[in-house]
Amino acid sequence: MGYGLHGGDIYHGKIREDFSVNINPLGLPLGVIQMLRESVEGWSLYPDPECGELIRCLADYHGTQRERIVCGNGAADLIYRLAYLEKPGQALVLAPSFSEYERALMSVGCRVRHFPLREDKDFRVDAEVLAGYLEEGEWLFLCNPNNPTGLAAPKAQVELLAEACRKKGGLLVLDECFGEFLERPEDYSFTDKLWEHPEVVILKAFTKSYAMAGLRLGYMVCGDPVFAGRLRVTGQPWSVSLPAQEAGVAALREKRFLEETRRLIKTEREWMKERLADLGFVVFPSQVNFLLFKDEGEECHGNLWEKLRERRILIRDCSNFRGLEPGEDFGRIRYYRIGLKKREKNEKLLGAFKEIVKDS
Amino acid sequence: MGYGLHGGDIYHGKIREDFSVNINPLGLPLGVIQMLRESVEGWSLYPDPECGELIRCLADYHGTQRERIVCGNGAADLIYRLAYLEKPGQALVLAPSFSEYERALMSVGCRVRHFPLREDKDFRVDAEVLAGYLEEGEWLFLCNPNNPTGLAAPKAQVELLAEACRKKGGLLVLDECFGEFLERPEDYSFTDKLWEHPEVVILKAFTKSYAMAGLRLGYMVCGDPVFAGRLRVTGQPWSVSLPAQEAGVAALREKRFLEETRRLIKTEREWMKERLADLGFVVFPSQVNFLLFKDEGEECHGNLWEKLRERRILIRDCSNFRGLEPGEDFGRIRYYRIGLKKREKNEKLLGAFKEIVKDS
Repeated sequence: MGYGLHGGDIYHGKIREDFSVNINPLGLPLGVIQMLRESVEGWSLYPDPECGELIRCLADYHGTQRERIVCGNGAADLIYRLAYLEKPGQALVLAPSFSEYERALMSVGCRVRHFPLREDKDFRVDAEVLAGYLEEGEWLFLCNPNNPTGLAAPKAQVELLAEACRKKGGLLVLDECFGEFLERPEDYSFTDKLWEHPEVVILKAFTKSYAMAGLRLGYMVCGDPVFAGRLRVTGQPWSVSLPAQEAGVAALREKRFLEETRRLIKTEREWMKERLADLGFVVFPSQVNFLLFKDEGEECHGNLWEKLRERRILIRDCSNFRGLEPGEDFGRIRYYRIGLKKREKNEKLLGAFKEIVKDS
Repeated sequence: MGYGLHGGDIYHGKIREDFSVNINPLGLPLGVIQMLRESVEGWSLYPDPECGELIRCLADYHGTQRERIVCGNGAADLIYRLAYLEKPGQALVLAPSFSEYERALMSVGCRVRHFPLREDKDFRVDAEVLAGYLEEGEWLFLCNPNNPTGLAAPKAQVELLAEACRKKGGLLVLDECFGEFLERPEDYSFTDKLWEHPEVVILKAFTKSYAMAGLRLGYMVCGDPVFAGRLRVTGQPWSVSLPAQEAGVAALREKRFLEETRRLIKTEREWMKERLADLGFVVFPSQVNFLLFKDEGEECHGNLWEKLRERRILIRDCSNFRGLEPGEDFGRIRYYRIGLKKREKNEKLLGAFKEIVKDS
């Protein structure tokens, strides 16, 4: 029926473990679960179109003004609303990066250009080169940390890009949906710089950091309250459901949840990275909760995605990410992404990899 | 922050009873509540973008094919997606009627014309006159039963309008969101006629009939699977949350819930109508779960909305419905809409009305 582009497609077969998604392996915070269970009967009411309480909590959390925040039905909702509202003529996206930017932009007739990230630089964003590439009035979509590659550009680099966007009269859409998984998010998040940068909008989500993918909750923070006001009234009034609003408020009360998450992710990332490398895979450096790796050369093990699926395990085949498509080397270079989970599950995945490597 | 157009704005004050919304007074079906409580932990997963299980259940329910159904984040989501997808040049909407059609159409630059419903005909739709009013290529939005007036056009009238739309090369968007409250929905719903009418799309929702406003779940059924396929991929892939999908599946299993609803609504509507008339209000005939009434003439009781709000009761002031705006008679003719609830609450509302009438 037309999708299946993304990870997480567990609805079409019996999958035991899904490593194709990048969701916090701790699952929903307990406080959120409890609050949701207690609130069910109230969901016959319409949600607050202004997301009043949630926006008050978010403004406190980020130390910013409520007028700069807009909530959405997941960050994806806001990506489309941004596109519908402004209908940019031209935009630049990273390759590889999250594919919904391009889909949303294309849906309003935008010309989309791609900025190739260099594999020999570990897909790191070179802000100076990227800034030089920008054209007049062009929007820049920067996923930071980037998906599926896992690295983040530090704040100074983002600032350089913001200034380039301002000079060219474009908008910098900064997707920080994976920012909470970084060891020191404050070194990367641009939220404290927004006052000086009306040309920047930041997308954030509860989806990944608080494992709320099914509930759909994202938000935008920007420096320009007038722009926020216009985005707020783009689309239907009730885009954010009541359970999502309530879960968001409860999640922000969970003070230690993200710290615990970061500790777990760091440990598992190092553990998994080392072991995948031992098996002969090329693992790219990551600062977040997923790893991009490459299976290549004479030792290439065929279609790992298929072989794992036979074992009822799902990983993300990256061949539909622009910049990671199979080229002439098809069959000899393949990229995959795995979301990190708790140790026991990661061990299962590793065990499956070991079997496949041994068999091939 | 820009909304407050609709009923249900209970988030900006201490409201004890909200009669401004049109939601099933029975609340969420018990089976839905139970299922949601048991499912909370699973909401960390992404929702199925194809709404597979829900669409299978809906296809069974309507005796139609899955390919003709598209689910959305409430019916409002689908109204906007329809507008974004097709960007109609011109559309005709009823006056008065639900205001989101016009907002969605305006957002894509559509020219919106209004077909005035005649108060002296109880705001009934005259299909022949309306059909004659249609212009070339124009879309028609027909809320049936209509909100805020409460009457439904029978199937033969709708068919006449569908044929007019086909001849003119337009689309008939038929909003049946209140259809389940009719005594005999099958005499009005056009779902069984869609096979012969590719120029019709029907919007339906769980919002009102199953009291799921906070969960956000609506769907579209149409005769043309190709059109449905295009609408399905308009906007983000994950617009329908996991709780909404699960609640929808559970709701469709509640076989007696709607029958019980219809019995309650019929009784309360007749009861309330008679008593409002006794107080001197002009109550328009309604076939559904809300009543439109008029307070006018020498006996006009001022701003009932304000007077009830002082008693912490909310009703729908209809002065922002096109066609019910205060004109030269401002202050002497006012329209209000109330959603019917269970007897005990309806009695409270009536008691408040009685006090106000006595005091003025």
